[in-house]
Amino acid sequence: MNQRASTPLVLSLLTLLAISATQAAPPPRTSQADLIKQSAPRDWRRLDPENTLVMEINGQQVILELAPRFAPKHAANIRTLAREGYYTGSAIVRVQDNYVTQWADPADEEKEKDKVKPLGTALASLPAEFSIPFKGLPLTRFTDPDGWAPVSGFVDGLPVAADPAKNKAWLAHCYGMVGAARSTKPDSSNGTSLYAINGQAPRALDLNITVVGRVVKGMEVLSSLPRGPGAMGFYDKPERYIPITQARMLADIPAAEQPAIEIMRIDTATWRKLVEASRHAIGGWAVRSALHSNICNRTVPTRPIASPAAS
Amino acid sequence: MNQRASTPLVLSLLTLLAISATQAAPPPRTSQADLIKQSAPRDWRRLDPENTLVMEINGQQVILELAPRFAPKHAANIRTLAREGYYTGSAIVRVQDNYVTQWADPADEEKEKDKVKPLGTALASLPAEFSIPFKGLPLTRFTDPDGWAPVSGFVDGLPVAADPAKNKAWLAHCYGMVGAARSTKPDSSNGTSLYAINGQAPRALDLNITVVGRVVKGMEVLSSLPRGPGAMGFYDKPERYIPITQARMLADIPAAEQPAIEIMRIDTATWRKLVEASRHAIGGWAVRSALHSNICNRTVPTRPIASPAAS
Repeated sequence: MNQRASTPLVLSLLTLLAISATQAAPPPRTSQADLIKQSAPRDWRRLDPENTLVMEINGQQVILELAPRFAPKHAANIRTLAREGYYTGSAIVRVQDNYVTQWADPADEEKEKDKVKPLGTALASLPAEFSIPFKGLPLTRFTDPDGWAPVSGFVDGLPVAADPAKNKAWLAHCYGMVGAARSTKPDSSNGTSLYAINGQAPRALDLNITVVGRVVKGMEVLSSLPRGPGAMGFYDKPERYIPITQARMLADIPAAEQPAIEIMRIDTATWRKLVEASRHAIGGWAVRSALHSNICNRTVPTRPIASPAAS
Repeated sequence: MNQRASTPLVLSLLTLLAISATQAAPPPRTSQADLIKQSAPRDWRRLDPENTLVMEINGQQVILELAPRFAPKHAANIRTLAREGYYTGSAIVRVQDNYVTQWADPADEEKEKDKVKPLGTALASLPAEFSIPFKGLPLTRFTDPDGWAPVSGFVDGLPVAADPAKNKAWLAHCYGMVGAARSTKPDSSNGTSLYAINGQAPRALDLNITVVGRVVKGMEVLSSLPRGPGAMGFYDKPERYIPITQARMLADIPAAEQPAIEIMRIDTATWRKLVEASRHAIGGWAVRSALHSNICNRTVPTRPIASPAAS
């Protein structure tokens, strides 16, 4: 190997050597299920009430945790839209198989200008928030190569990809991640129409659109909806639209009605053990360890809590 | 970099160099949609009638193309089970979100021994068919690194991973791929219960279970079913089971009733251009090219044909 290998090649080699070192360690013996069972209360955190949107669809709860660190302006606008009632009465308008489930104001979709919901004090136009600086980001890093980016890991419970050479980090389009739909102009999203990934991670969308958070509960409600028969999975008739009957910020829901779930922290030894366990065959069924994982194959666990009021 | 780099490291370096070379080529300008539109009749093939299972679920067609090259004994057994009526009257018994949709004989699930369907002339026991030799395999190779395996690409329209150093190749657990459910023993599958991947590719299953083919039409029928409330997504009550009302080999369906679809060949310039196009932002909406793809992000297209009888 000659000495003039480019910097990316050297970085990739270092990554590969790091992986070899990891593979030489003795394999873990505790399964992911047991690690969760054995976890301590400090391994978990509550949802942030000012950054959690609770929606009701088909009588079921769908909970979206926003990502203010990555998309502060979109998070603020979504918060305003939710508080001023924009999403209540909006609807699922598109379900494209192995791609996205999308919601919007039906009147906006039908181009019925006189019925379009007013934006209230929310902003009609926002800058694109495709990436943030990598430097200083509290990234719990994955040792396995990502393929789509030089570096990957988790921040604030969310899958993140990064390019340190360009000092850029961004949210990855994994299953359950939510983005802000836009038209051709990169800065044309404002949070009025959002989509959740319902299949194989379409990572080619990364850095092409603003990602605003993740569905932390109820993703199965969005993924099991009928696929739209129209182009790109759009519901071709208004009567197919599935209404969002209620949408509120968690902070605005009376304590007794608040969803009682907590989410695992990712700055802990438990999380790191969980990631390592996912690389190995543990428990008797599997005969072969993959010795690899990927940020999109590793969802941050949530679980019910005994009492939402306790803290 | 010292000279004693291990073989896998050198191979990885070669892969990286190959990618750099690819990235230096001028980017393609024709979109995937236009490539399909411009394709010639010779870019497409018919489904193999002796290796295609056509099922009806909720009044909709689900078509599974078998992979006799990778799992010949399972393919033969599935063919026998289909022809002797085993699957007609079986049912979807499990839908686990972002994982699998699985079908089986309901009586088998309910442990009602007296009602269990007879296997007829199908075999109760088969060897595990987890991998085949890599040497000589007609692999249309992906240039991008896979992460889960040293080599990846497509064979017979199916996503394949391989380890040339071990002379092994296997079908990858991508969205829509179908495997034969097994219990703890590696050789305990016989095709009576099958599952289709309905979310992010669970590649850790690779080499742990026999993969038998791919859903080439109607995957959205399987992916939009209600998730099971039981452990691992099993339907907890028999009344939730969703029947497979009919299941026949394509060869046994009268010509006039045969599904009129064709599937793209992968040994063509059109396919290679399609893969390359998927690595680039083409058409105006995307602002950034990923310059990467993955076998699980690239499904082999199918399309309706004018007349199923013509050839």
